Amino acid sequence: MTDLPTRVDIQEEGPREGFQIEPGPIPTADKIALIDALSATGLRRIQVASFVNPKLVPGWADAEAVVAGFTPRAGVEYHGLWFSPSGLQRALAFRDRLTIFGSITVSASEAFSRQNLNRDHAGQLEAMRKHVAAHQAAGVPVTRVSVQAAFGCNFSGDVPAARVVSVLAEALALAEETGCTIERASIADSMGWATPLRVERVIGAVRERWPALKLVLHLHDTRGLGIACALSGLRMGVSTFDAAVAGVGGCPFAAHPGAAGNIATEELVFLCEEMGIETGVKLEPLLEAATLAERIFGRRLPSAMIRGGGLDRHRVHAAA
Amino acid sequence: MTDLPTRVDIQEEGPREGFQIEPGPIPTADKIALIDALSATGLRRIQVASFVNPKLVPGWADAEAVVAGFTPRAGVEYHGLWFSPSGLQRALAFRDRLTIFGSITVSASEAFSRQNLNRDHAGQLEAMRKHVAAHQAAGVPVTRVSVQAAFGCNFSGDVPAARVVSVLAEALALAEETGCTIERASIADSMGWATPLRVERVIGAVRERWPALKLVLHLHDTRGLGIACALSGLRMGVSTFDAAVAGVGGCPFAAHPGAAGNIATEELVFLCEEMGIETGVKLEPLLEAATLAERIFGRRLPSAMIRGGGLDRHRVHAAA
Repeated sequence: MTDLPTRVDIQEEGPREGFQIEPGPIPTADKIALIDALSATGLRRIQVASFVNPKLVPGWADAEAVVAGFTPRAGVEYHGLWFSPSGLQRALAFRDRLTIFGSITVSASEAFSRQNLNRDHAGQLEAMRKHVAAHQAAGVPVTRVSVQAAFGCNFSGDVPAARVVSVLAEALALAEETGCTIERASIADSMGWATPLRVERVIGAVRERWPALKLVLHLHDTRGLGIACALSGLRMGVSTFDAAVAGVGGCPFAAHPGAAGNIATEELVFLCEEMGIETGVKLEPLLEAATLAERIFGRRLPSAMIRGGGLDRHRVHAAA
Repeated sequence: MTDLPTRVDIQEEGPREGFQIEPGPIPTADKIALIDALSATGLRRIQVASFVNPKLVPGWADAEAVVAGFTPRAGVEYHGLWFSPSGLQRALAFRDRLTIFGSITVSASEAFSRQNLNRDHAGQLEAMRKHVAAHQAAGVPVTRVSVQAAFGCNFSGDVPAARVVSVLAEALALAEETGCTIERASIADSMGWATPLRVERVIGAVRERWPALKLVLHLHDTRGLGIACALSGLRMGVSTFDAAVAGVGGCPFAAHPGAAGNIATEELVFLCEEMGIETGVKLEPLLEAATLAERIFGRRLPSAMIRGGGLDRHRVHAAA
């Protein structure tokens, strides 16, 4: 029990993940309302928009209007996502509202790299070299690496931990060559293949190789094991997690109609807080944001916590 | 990793749990079809009906017709549930189709005992003494004890592990006095208060006191932690779990509109099989049964696996 972290950082990805996959169109004002609701929960990092090709991801055609429209709150970092130089330029127009940093993204599955990134692995490394140069030319630090498909792939099957270590090593070598200081490495279960034991094996292998590297776990709850996998991540010393309010989201390129959202932020907060791990997030306003998300998306969202609610309300009642 | 069991027994409670809480009415033929579908999955224990007061639980007014109607399969035990002598008599009419045994049920929360069992704790122990006598008079062995509200209570708040140990001790003492041989003790999270650490604490305390007692964990996924709690149970050496196909069910007496079903059988099977723990259950026919349940219930059910599907189909595709 004692190897659990005492504090966990949660990176809220609900707006970016959620609005990218909904058939929509969802009004810009609703997207802004959800971001503002999330800003009031104690979350300190919120990914608010995706600067991607609106022909490929029509849900983010209004990225500029959303980023211009939300009300920034002191102490909260707002992030964007982009993959191209033009996306970076679009983000840079909001230097005053967004915390802007670059990421080196690789895939542990060559097949997923071709599907999701449109390049084979060697091509992706070459593209990342140019990507880093574009960021550096714009004065933007590259501080993250991200390994996609780290636990398995719908196109190529199981992914060995050694493969995650080798592609991460290549990404970190590229970062070092190009003078980037990497602050965090994200290990992503892009297609919902993680199990608790796979998390232990992959995170264990990565931490053995790079004990001081700060890891982020990005989990999709495609098969109901998301929170159990997060627990394994916690036990392995991971202290930063991506999550999405109400469990929204899903990868549009996973070739899978059941592609599910990230683990639900409120379930992760509940897991942590009830086990004595501080998140800085207040559950009740977060549940209000999740309820708002359900209203905006217009359908029942995956999070059980939306209906289950927190325990403190029962404790207060019981103590009365 | 190595303290995980090599084999897990799953007790399917979907029919009993699910049909008790749906507003319905659900046609008897649909209930029978779901039981028959579950019989073909490799599950070896299925709770098929509840012989309770149809005024309180109208969804089980047709218990006799359901039990008379399903097609028993060799190697599968079919169970019923009852709380009164008249319920026992109704079950006994099906000695040829049901495996009939009695349970001593107590609650770790006095408040939940009053709500769910209609008696305080002392009254419940007295009632259980008569309950055992009624079973023995009918020649039915009493082989289980069950502790409800073992992790917390909507009416009285947190439940200490020591309280679970003390009520279980009383139930086991009653069993011994009355000459019952207890084969399994069920520890039930009746209202969705379990967290992975609470499971470790409660199961740890119980196993320390009774190292040889075979435990069953009964978990409701009210707040999204059900499978993570099951994982903690596995790590603590629990090798029998209740689960419900598609995650159906919920306690009608929990005074909670968000009362959720059991953990989904297919998510538990997936968790176990992908970690190398044998369940004897075949995932694909189980997913078909879950899809049938969703059709019968006429709404989107909680299980993510219904949409996510298994991994073997992707592995086959990847290997082709």
